[in-house]
Amino acid sequence: MKVDGTHYRSLWWDEDMGALLIIVQRWRPLEFRSEQVDTLQDFADAIVEMRVRGAPLIGATAAYGMALAARLDPSDTNLDAAWAFLDKTRPTAINLRWALNRCRAHLTPLREPERAAAALRLAHEISDEDVDINRRIGQNGLEIIRKIAAGKKDGEPVHILTHCNAGWIATVDWGTATSPMYQAFNENIPIHIWVDETRPRNQGALTSWELGSHGIAHTYITDNAGGHLMQHGMVDLVITGTDRTTRRGDVCNKIGTYLKALAAKANNVPFYVALPSPTIDWSVDDGVAEIPIEERLEREVSHVQGLSDAGTIAQVQVTPHGTPGGNPAFDVTPNHLVTGLITERGVCEASAEGLAGLFPDLAAVAKSA
Amino acid sequence: MKVDGTHYRSLWWDEDMGALLIIVQRWRPLEFRSEQVDTLQDFADAIVEMRVRGAPLIGATAAYGMALAARLDPSDTNLDAAWAFLDKTRPTAINLRWALNRCRAHLTPLREPERAAAALRLAHEISDEDVDINRRIGQNGLEIIRKIAAGKKDGEPVHILTHCNAGWIATVDWGTATSPMYQAFNENIPIHIWVDETRPRNQGALTSWELGSHGIAHTYITDNAGGHLMQHGMVDLVITGTDRTTRRGDVCNKIGTYLKALAAKANNVPFYVALPSPTIDWSVDDGVAEIPIEERLEREVSHVQGLSDAGTIAQVQVTPHGTPGGNPAFDVTPNHLVTGLITERGVCEASAEGLAGLFPDLAAVAKSA
Repeated sequence: MKVDGTHYRSLWWDEDMGALLIIVQRWRPLEFRSEQVDTLQDFADAIVEMRVRGAPLIGATAAYGMALAARLDPSDTNLDAAWAFLDKTRPTAINLRWALNRCRAHLTPLREPERAAAALRLAHEISDEDVDINRRIGQNGLEIIRKIAAGKKDGEPVHILTHCNAGWIATVDWGTATSPMYQAFNENIPIHIWVDETRPRNQGALTSWELGSHGIAHTYITDNAGGHLMQHGMVDLVITGTDRTTRRGDVCNKIGTYLKALAAKANNVPFYVALPSPTIDWSVDDGVAEIPIEERLEREVSHVQGLSDAGTIAQVQVTPHGTPGGNPAFDVTPNHLVTGLITERGVCEASAEGLAGLFPDLAAVAKSA
Repeated sequence: MKVDGTHYRSLWWDEDMGALLIIVQRWRPLEFRSEQVDTLQDFADAIVEMRVRGAPLIGATAAYGMALAARLDPSDTNLDAAWAFLDKTRPTAINLRWALNRCRAHLTPLREPERAAAALRLAHEISDEDVDINRRIGQNGLEIIRKIAAGKKDGEPVHILTHCNAGWIATVDWGTATSPMYQAFNENIPIHIWVDETRPRNQGALTSWELGSHGIAHTYITDNAGGHLMQHGMVDLVITGTDRTTRRGDVCNKIGTYLKALAAKANNVPFYVALPSPTIDWSVDDGVAEIPIEERLEREVSHVQGLSDAGTIAQVQVTPHGTPGGNPAFDVTPNHLVTGLITERGVCEASAEGLAGLFPDLAAVAKSA
């Protein structure tokens, strides 16, 4: 999307450098800096350290990682090793495994000398597909916003709450949860976004920066505030992203999403989840029981990063010495709390029937697997 | 409660200095420092700046403020002025108005020369009452913990989640929500406390410091984590405090409490609220509709305070420049989400009948008012 009027994607391949360039996702400093990623270790680090984050972007990054591996050594042994090395970087992100599998399946039948070029073409293709998928998610989500806007008095904005950053810098472009917002904004529908801070890593700052750069009205709130706002009719709609959606529509997303879904249900606020179909894990049914939740570093909880008075990035410790911190990074929202799933093929009920109805092809493949 | 084996209260009057001493509630530095409060402006500032916080402690502090006013000028005019000056410091804290009214009602019938001494005796009395009330809340809450512990395997702790700081430093002693925890700990019932961070002001750090100083096992978690923990059976019980409880048992407490109550209900986790009876506002029925919610400074949301690498207290800005922050400070949990109210007279249902059953005297007075 646009920053100061210029259009960017979150990553792009530089052929001369033989390297991927990624936008540095640390929101401070706000200068727009890209970073070169050119060894397999770099790729893994970028994912583990969340310099690249967001399920779709992780998938595209992993595909470029496989392209790099194929360029260095296109043998089956090396591609398998690269697959395994990248696969272990993030246990929750289903797009990662999806992209890695797709690359391996595409490359293995080819002769070794053809693999490097084919791998790069595939990585480009996965990136372009992501852009197109997210654009279409936005168009489908736009209809939901349009309907709510139609019930408003002239000029009254549609208030949308979102959690974490499912924005364009977490995808190649558009974002997932934010894509309908950009589409609505571009059509001059008045909107205002409540942006959850999303402790421990405060991805709400990323979302705020994105929205602000594009000129969309928004307010940054603590993760505690959303229930109160919904209770008082100040939220018309919730849209979040997801890292992994089960076959029956349970949604695994950033920790705290579940609490907002409960509040939305209790206050009759529509709760939508925007997702590209590669995020669907057709092998999992009951998300709460089956999805392992990543426990991340204690330091993310005990320390908060921000801009110091001196204008530098600094961390402050918010816990007393000796106090342990717990850091489950995701939670699962059961399908009965989800009003609908916004996908690139349309909006469906969060159910096995709903998803299979939109994606009969994928559901059939999964069933036969 | 104890810090390094020594027993403290949160405030005490120094007769020689003619001043109140309060424990400095900034959790950093962890050195134990008291601060002198000796003008009416000081009293108001201490409450507004939340150097004194927690409903009961605000009440006791206000009573000492009235004692100071009576010492300087015991006229009706001055007492009324002091009442009005202190009353406006915090709109949500019902104990504040309760204590101020009690002081004025007690002093007005007296001759002016008697008022200073009487006001001081009354402030002492309100403090001592608070200690006794909270000790009894703890004894009543202890029975709930004891029953849960009885169903546990030997040595398995009872996991209790709490939000904000309703600890001893938010009261004169014991705390409200924490009082049952101290009582259980003192009886050697194994407990472990999940401490919600409680953005924006991170009062969870205060609770962690208190619990740690007393030797109670605890884990500091983000406000987002509790739903997930409850969903996975990792929370046996929630106990929070409250700033104001309505006649029918709706609970106004720190922002985010409502989200935890929703999660507790959805996962069959008992959700108790500990409260001293002065926190009951008999004039309010429907908390969501009737209680005005304080909107606090944006800076509390945009900045986080903690310990810098250099060992000093520092603030970092977590939001991008130009992003506005919303800061509703409290929310209301409707009574149907509350399993029970733990009071100094026992545990009751969160309903008009429940509260009137335990406090027929107060309910009757309120009705005739």
